[in-house]
Amino acid sequence: MKKHNFNPGPSILPQYTVEETAKAIHDFAGTGLSILEVSHRSKEFEAVVNETVALFKELLNIPEGYAVIFVGGGASTQFFHVPYNLLEKKAAYLITGQWAQKAAKEAKLFGPVEVVASSEDKNFTYIPKDFTIPADADYFHITTNNTIYGTEILTDLDSPVPLVADMSSDIFSRPVDVSKYGLIYGGAQKNLAPAGLTFVIVREDLLGKVSRPLPTMVDYRTHIKNNSLYNTPPVVIIYSALLTLRWMKEQGGVAEMERRNKAKAELLYNEIDRNKLFVGTVAKEDRSRMNVCFVMAPGYEQLEAEFAEFAKSKGMVGIKGHRSVGGFRASLYNALPLESVQALVDCMQEFEASH
Amino acid sequence: MKKHNFNPGPSILPQYTVEETAKAIHDFAGTGLSILEVSHRSKEFEAVVNETVALFKELLNIPEGYAVIFVGGGASTQFFHVPYNLLEKKAAYLITGQWAQKAAKEAKLFGPVEVVASSEDKNFTYIPKDFTIPADADYFHITTNNTIYGTEILTDLDSPVPLVADMSSDIFSRPVDVSKYGLIYGGAQKNLAPAGLTFVIVREDLLGKVSRPLPTMVDYRTHIKNNSLYNTPPVVIIYSALLTLRWMKEQGGVAEMERRNKAKAELLYNEIDRNKLFVGTVAKEDRSRMNVCFVMAPGYEQLEAEFAEFAKSKGMVGIKGHRSVGGFRASLYNALPLESVQALVDCMQEFEASH
Repeated sequence: MKKHNFNPGPSILPQYTVEETAKAIHDFAGTGLSILEVSHRSKEFEAVVNETVALFKELLNIPEGYAVIFVGGGASTQFFHVPYNLLEKKAAYLITGQWAQKAAKEAKLFGPVEVVASSEDKNFTYIPKDFTIPADADYFHITTNNTIYGTEILTDLDSPVPLVADMSSDIFSRPVDVSKYGLIYGGAQKNLAPAGLTFVIVREDLLGKVSRPLPTMVDYRTHIKNNSLYNTPPVVIIYSALLTLRWMKEQGGVAEMERRNKAKAELLYNEIDRNKLFVGTVAKEDRSRMNVCFVMAPGYEQLEAEFAEFAKSKGMVGIKGHRSVGGFRASLYNALPLESVQALVDCMQEFEASH
Repeated sequence: MKKHNFNPGPSILPQYTVEETAKAIHDFAGTGLSILEVSHRSKEFEAVVNETVALFKELLNIPEGYAVIFVGGGASTQFFHVPYNLLEKKAAYLITGQWAQKAAKEAKLFGPVEVVASSEDKNFTYIPKDFTIPADADYFHITTNNTIYGTEILTDLDSPVPLVADMSSDIFSRPVDVSKYGLIYGGAQKNLAPAGLTFVIVREDLLGKVSRPLPTMVDYRTHIKNNSLYNTPPVVIIYSALLTLRWMKEQGGVAEMERRNKAKAELLYNEIDRNKLFVGTVAKEDRSRMNVCFVMAPGYEQLEAEFAEFAKSKGMVGIKGHRSVGGFRASLYNALPLESVQALVDCMQEFEASH
């Protein structure tokens, strides 16, 4: 049976990435060695890093003055690396979910944190709109897509101070005006690569300004200076990331990704709004294109387990909602085809017809 | 032509690991999904983590009271995580190469560091023997194998304070008395897995004693408490590590690895000592079984480039020495077969005969 992979991350990757990674495990770039066994100092792998950085810059239209680096440890590690590198006087955070809360918590170890707004009052089902970013903050931190709750900031905010964004779960899903950001970071395991890689896009003139000493691996300048090869990087994961970027470019870039993501999200949200058995969980204007959260409509709560079982029997994978929200969550990352969303919609309609 | 992979790391892995990883990229554990796309919260992957930890404990005979965790960022990240977690009053370091120097440098950010001995006076060609470990240090840090220089500490030292060892390049190469260590860490990309994974074996009663606040991802207790699943781990790399551990167990465990490693090292060192064209670079009693460093003998220096070319033409990969030492370095990690060492020896003999 065909599986439809709605996993929230690690998640579906382009078939091209999967197949070409498997090929490179047998023979990488004609070296006669597996990509699992090649030196990160080989000219073949240096070429991989260089092309990966170049495609990041091309696809996201990254302006001059920004560096792209690859590090380990996931976005959770960036939660403390960001303030370690940037927080001198004060930082400002917008709290739109658990990840933003965790990021703010780590920042407090390095200096004062001002929470400009939070949507915790309604279990993070909306994005706060009315807030003032303090002009004396070193930076303003946002989480652009809230994987757990299914909300998303779909525009590039104006900020009087450097804007820092965790884009773990929506990077490459739409064109972004990188010039409006000071730093963008994220785990790669949604729209880019298998789990095990973290990317950081940073405006270089923001670095080197804090007075505290930085551990070598924390200091972004270490990785910029060494083209992400200061120490041994996750070779095969970077190679898979490159494959995804090549695929993305060949498909038409982030503008085409956005067109597809809009179509997929619209198809599913329309069904949620139409189907009497289901209801969306977040404010309509803040609905995420990446993670669509929904629950059984009032009066039909007792059907949740039955629908979960039915969907599973139809090949749907990974649609169980996060425990903080309950119900269902379908993640519609770049590599998920429209056909999978249609399969889920068919499933919801068939379930509705039989109840 | 058959390639003989003497890369210093990332390096050769068992054929079993390579082939089974490739298979899992097509279908992981019968899930119908690629290992690149499965959730780290799936029961299938939790089983992988549990078995990996269990095999670590079984193969290294790890006593009760120790935890095994997997994190990102490489050993270079542990250089600052170790003192962050353990350094309160003072730390002691043995300096046997660049990696030990780098580790000590990071520790100085967190407190006083006493260097008990260094072999820098002779370009790290030996392991210092006469030194006193200060009884008031929080821990004593060593690098058991010095990949760049080809020296190795082949016994488990006695220490009056917790012994902390970077075993990046010799873990699983011999039986280790883990009870003599407080903490063992390393990058996995030599004897264990593709690049992108870091392991930490830690005696749990050493944790939680420093007065400084710890970032969540730095605190080893975060990863212990969450079975290395606090955040998204490098899924496919952990799976490859598990495959290598299964292979190692099936082959006879670390005792058998040591027997093979001794035989391989003896074969190559004997040839270096016999062959008039080559000479070893380190004190014989401190020769590493993992990385064998040698240069052209006095009077034959001008043949270096020619031998490099000749060896390459015979399928030898990765034998160029590190720039700090020059000459050649053949890395004989667990997965390298004796046949590859024999091929290199044949190559050295053929080259000698023609000169």
